[in-house]
Amino acid sequence: MQADLQIDARWIIPVVPSGVVLDDHSLIVRGGRIVAVMPTSQANQSVDATQRRSLSNHALVPGLVNAHCHAAMTLLRGIADDLPLMTWLNDHIWPVEGALVSAQMVHDGASLAAYEMLAGGITAVNDQYFFPESSAKAYRDAGMRASLGIPIVEFSTPYARDADDYLRRGLALADEVKGDSLLVASFAPHAPYTVSDESFKKIRTYSDQLNVRIQCHIHETAFEVEDARSRTGERPFSRLKRLGLIGPDLTAVHMTQLTPAEIEDVARFGVVVAHCPESNLKLASGSCPVAALLKAGAKVAIGTDGAASNNDLDLLGETKTAALLAKAVAMDAAALSAAEALEAATLSGARSLGMDETIGSLEVGKWADVCAIDFSGLHLAPVFNPISHIVYAASRRDISDVWVAGRERVRAGVVLGADPERLRALANEWALKARAVRP
Amino acid sequence: MQADLQIDARWIIPVVPSGVVLDDHSLIVRGGRIVAVMPTSQANQSVDATQRRSLSNHALVPGLVNAHCHAAMTLLRGIADDLPLMTWLNDHIWPVEGALVSAQMVHDGASLAAYEMLAGGITAVNDQYFFPESSAKAYRDAGMRASLGIPIVEFSTPYARDADDYLRRGLALADEVKGDSLLVASFAPHAPYTVSDESFKKIRTYSDQLNVRIQCHIHETAFEVEDARSRTGERPFSRLKRLGLIGPDLTAVHMTQLTPAEIEDVARFGVVVAHCPESNLKLASGSCPVAALLKAGAKVAIGTDGAASNNDLDLLGETKTAALLAKAVAMDAAALSAAEALEAATLSGARSLGMDETIGSLEVGKWADVCAIDFSGLHLAPVFNPISHIVYAASRRDISDVWVAGRERVRAGVVLGADPERLRALANEWALKARAVRP
Repeated sequence: MQADLQIDARWIIPVVPSGVVLDDHSLIVRGGRIVAVMPTSQANQSVDATQRRSLSNHALVPGLVNAHCHAAMTLLRGIADDLPLMTWLNDHIWPVEGALVSAQMVHDGASLAAYEMLAGGITAVNDQYFFPESSAKAYRDAGMRASLGIPIVEFSTPYARDADDYLRRGLALADEVKGDSLLVASFAPHAPYTVSDESFKKIRTYSDQLNVRIQCHIHETAFEVEDARSRTGERPFSRLKRLGLIGPDLTAVHMTQLTPAEIEDVARFGVVVAHCPESNLKLASGSCPVAALLKAGAKVAIGTDGAASNNDLDLLGETKTAALLAKAVAMDAAALSAAEALEAATLSGARSLGMDETIGSLEVGKWADVCAIDFSGLHLAPVFNPISHIVYAASRRDISDVWVAGRERVRAGVVLGADPERLRALANEWALKARAVRP
Repeated sequence: MQADLQIDARWIIPVVPSGVVLDDHSLIVRGGRIVAVMPTSQANQSVDATQRRSLSNHALVPGLVNAHCHAAMTLLRGIADDLPLMTWLNDHIWPVEGALVSAQMVHDGASLAAYEMLAGGITAVNDQYFFPESSAKAYRDAGMRASLGIPIVEFSTPYARDADDYLRRGLALADEVKGDSLLVASFAPHAPYTVSDESFKKIRTYSDQLNVRIQCHIHETAFEVEDARSRTGERPFSRLKRLGLIGPDLTAVHMTQLTPAEIEDVARFGVVVAHCPESNLKLASGSCPVAALLKAGAKVAIGTDGAASNNDLDLLGETKTAALLAKAVAMDAAALSAAEALEAATLSGARSLGMDETIGSLEVGKWADVCAIDFSGLHLAPVFNPISHIVYAASRRDISDVWVAGRERVRAGVVLGADPERLRALANEWALKARAVRP
């Protein structure tokens, strides 16, 4: 068999089938896609690869998928912490965003974020922020996948005047990225409390016409739900269901407040939940009922949220937090096992981007989006079960090599083609401007 | 001023006073102790140091203190996960411990743990396990501080026959480490449900006579409390109070189930709580009410617990988890701020070992137990507040240099005087033996 690349690994964890660990296997890549997964002893006899990598202390897993991010906000990492949500937004985040947000700021912030994400094994991201055209450029230059959320709110910002203006710009972006091998567009109505029924209906129509997914913050806090219910008599989830938004093309972000009937609906309608455990903890937003969702048959992906509320874009760390927190929330130490958590961070993440047919597992025919985790650190000794170590003991710093569609993006911990010193200088420049805005 | 060592740092965070960040300061060390903290510009004119280190991208913080650990269990890292507590103990941990625990196993496991802890900036630990004499040797060789918990249970193990036998061996250990510059002994009655009133009374007496602290798992789960109450009519905390155990020399581990009156008692009696957030989450044990304890005036330290239930000895990661979880538990985003969390991981940790007069902050007169955190990673850019980054964005892999009593133990990420390949080989040997025991 002719191939472009053969990666020999101590373990391959394909995610499908769930929980499987293949010892001393090789991943064979041609034209950016996985063409075989087989024992290395067999590959040695049957594969003729142009390039070969030997990762004898490593586990290969699918590239991690960050199901929710506001990448450009990486420039505001740690600008304000330990504050109630509305103080944090009103007194810190919004004034700084109002003064700083621009096409250039979004490009620089997304470039910094893409660097951090690739270095940490994230090969695809569900992003949403103003000026997604600028994020698109950053992701293209970085060579990673993204679903570019088209922001939609009812109020004016430096990016657009009103909901129709956001939609108009978004449709142009969707057109621009059509056919792109790494990028897709998605509609990102901000939240039920910032988007009108009329706009949601337009989004529904365009989504159907263009076959474009929708991502939306839903039920992030108890206040959001109670406020809507007391004003309108309707919970936001019910309203979105009435408007036809609840469906298999929806990625519902946060979802910390869910009734048993809503959990059933999430599963029945095929909604993908983007669970952001660290953001929910840090802002004291509430807890997503992950185990109950999985039990009902729903898909749960994992997101970092923006670095201003996290404060990192570390999906492997987020996966550990998700696995730990799910147990406490369910009061069941068996909830969200290591294998289930890894599936959430990969295959379900791919589904949240509408890409589960093409990425999210190491299966023949899928793109070779791959992440190698180095087990040579003593903090990973001894090894009883590599999947347990990946979720509970490894850190993103153990991720040594990353490929996107068979293209090497990280080698031995170094992000290829990046200019870290320039990114640092840009981060410092924007931080100076942000400091000038603060009271 | 003559000195042995001058460390110039971009920031020094002394922990006392709380929340303070000193820009471009130097830490001056003589005879293992901190003799001055001053602006580097001033040190350049007034200090004549034998050795000088320039850490221009780094923050210096006090060495981290791990308030609860079973170090030797590092050899069982990841042996079984995602199981209810009693299944995990009965079917996995106890059978393996029964077959493996020996003086040699404890020495090898504690050596592996000490390596991991030092590399991650932990300079002192509250340890408790069988054969503490063997752990003592491991910590002495590693050059880190430890409070060696003398295990006490009512049943026979490979280490001792009965409570009196445990106590007898423990008293010999306390005698052996008396005057040691790094080691102290402490009584470690396992838990209210495994130790009799009679033994607790003896421990109380010996503790007073010898001025030795006590560490004990208390109120780890709701089951523990409810089981005791239904059998005896008394909550374990009340029983320990009746027996005179509740006092300033007690480190109470876990404490996930506390009434308001118990929280008041913890504060009033000066008990130090050793909070183990990741272990509590992973075993679905419940949540320590950290914010309520702090508000009452109690001291809360942070522990990793053993690597079999965590699965790492990463106190910086544990500190982030503590800061995030406290907010969710208190339903208040302002709970356990970054500065409070850092104090918990250092000064309160020192108090849990009875060492807060001599370590836990970077103050003149204390031992130079110091940890340098390298801010040159892009995942820490930009910097608005270094304390926020240390707790919410840095990882233990950013810890570059570590000193214990002014003696360099880690330099540029390398643990000095250690033999990692030998430790790996030992870990693999013990893992083979553990695998042979499993069903």
